[in-house]
Amino acid sequence: MSTRFSEHATRDMTAVDEAVDTGLLRQVPLLAGLEDDLLARLVPICSSIMVAEGEQIAGQGEQCEYAFMVLSGQVALVNVAPNGDTAVVEVIHPGEQFFLSTVLSGLSLLVSAQAVAPARLLRLEAAGIMALLPSQPALTSALLRAGAMDFRSMVRQVCDLKLRTTAQRLGCYLLSLSTSENANSVALRLPFDKRLLAARLGCRQENLSRAFAALRSVGVETHGSRVILHDVARLRDYAVPDAPAEAGLA
Amino acid sequence: MSTRFSEHATRDMTAVDEAVDTGLLRQVPLLAGLEDDLLARLVPICSSIMVAEGEQIAGQGEQCEYAFMVLSGQVALVNVAPNGDTAVVEVIHPGEQFFLSTVLSGLSLLVSAQAVAPARLLRLEAAGIMALLPSQPALTSALLRAGAMDFRSMVRQVCDLKLRTTAQRLGCYLLSLSTSENANSVALRLPFDKRLLAARLGCRQENLSRAFAALRSVGVETHGSRVILHDVARLRDYAVPDAPAEAGLA
Repeated sequence: MSTRFSEHATRDMTAVDEAVDTGLLRQVPLLAGLEDDLLARLVPICSSIMVAEGEQIAGQGEQCEYAFMVLSGQVALVNVAPNGDTAVVEVIHPGEQFFLSTVLSGLSLLVSAQAVAPARLLRLEAAGIMALLPSQPALTSALLRAGAMDFRSMVRQVCDLKLRTTAQRLGCYLLSLSTSENANSVALRLPFDKRLLAARLGCRQENLSRAFAALRSVGVETHGSRVILHDVARLRDYAVPDAPAEAGLA
Repeated sequence: MSTRFSEHATRDMTAVDEAVDTGLLRQVPLLAGLEDDLLARLVPICSSIMVAEGEQIAGQGEQCEYAFMVLSGQVALVNVAPNGDTAVVEVIHPGEQFFLSTVLSGLSLLVSAQAVAPARLLRLEAAGIMALLPSQPALTSALLRAGAMDFRSMVRQVCDLKLRTTAQRLGCYLLSLSTSENANSVALRLPFDKRLLAARLGCRQENLSRAFAALRSVGVETHGSRVILHDVARLRDYAVPDAPAEAGLA
């Protein structure tokens, strides 16, 4: 698989779009539970930036000085192997963060980050966070927890890749897009194109087409990016998603 | 895949084998760089335990109060899906740790841990670590870094699973066992049985046999657990392992 999702170089990220206040910080689940005093100390080391679709936020191998939290839009984390093969490690959604544990530890980036839809990001200075830690145990706990959650999410993906077929992985992904708990029939729209979906699932595009075809027998109908799940219970039986309690802790 | 690696229940881990001192703590890379004063504060919350082959150290879904560091032996981290399918997420080697970020965040275990060879472990009380953090910024940094490394290792495995064939993954694994940097011919012994190796690579045992057969054409000869790599350079070209600089940061 040799797919590029961005033709842009890393840009100078100066496009700050508006002032950051504690209300904006509270939109991020990782920060939402912190006390006002602590949030007020975070404000000076945060800024809010806009990134265009296709734009690279930071490149693999770089030393990045910032952690990012997605306020809106979507960001793909992409690893390019020595031979040029490209893996989409994860697609980061609003409310989630990326680079946090890596930049706090001063490690170089193992993945590049690219906006796959126009995105608004909260950008936090790693050095500023580290300076706050000794006096702010609640921040330390929040960061350790965020790291633990990121780790869990990768563990879950490793299990997914080891145990499930491509069609099952696609089924689990479609089920994760369905927000209505109880409905047995759901119409939804894929949040990004099928090329990116294939790379996120870890398959070639022709295998993704085969996986969609396989899911037809369990009531999955597709028209471009529109997908209808006609029988959620049957799709669940087929794809065997993680238990909701576990998935909720991702 | 439905494989069990342990028939034992979680045991009462009271088999403390000897007193812990700062010298023992320094054997663990994560702790080796910490100052004597800090290590002395860790001693009272650490103990050293022996675990028999096949024994379960802690079970999936449990709230565990300890993080563990492997002093000798090997520990498999195993996730069982709702339908009973079993994935070996990782095999932990001497010098490496497990459960750290999860137990510091008070999350339930996503994987069980089982000794796959007789193991000696350093066991750290999570509550004791958390109590030390506010006064010990160096410990906070070490823990954040350990979490970042664990995360990287899972990211690398996700990329591995998305980009490489089973034969390539097996090739990368065999190359990782070879410690001699420059030799082009290496004899080595698999550190665990092929059932566990297949589960770690994320394939069925018959696919592992096929992968070994495929590697014959690039100079890999096997006799049970003994493996000879006749042409390391050719195997590298075939398996495309991660760049050493990146792998070293795992």
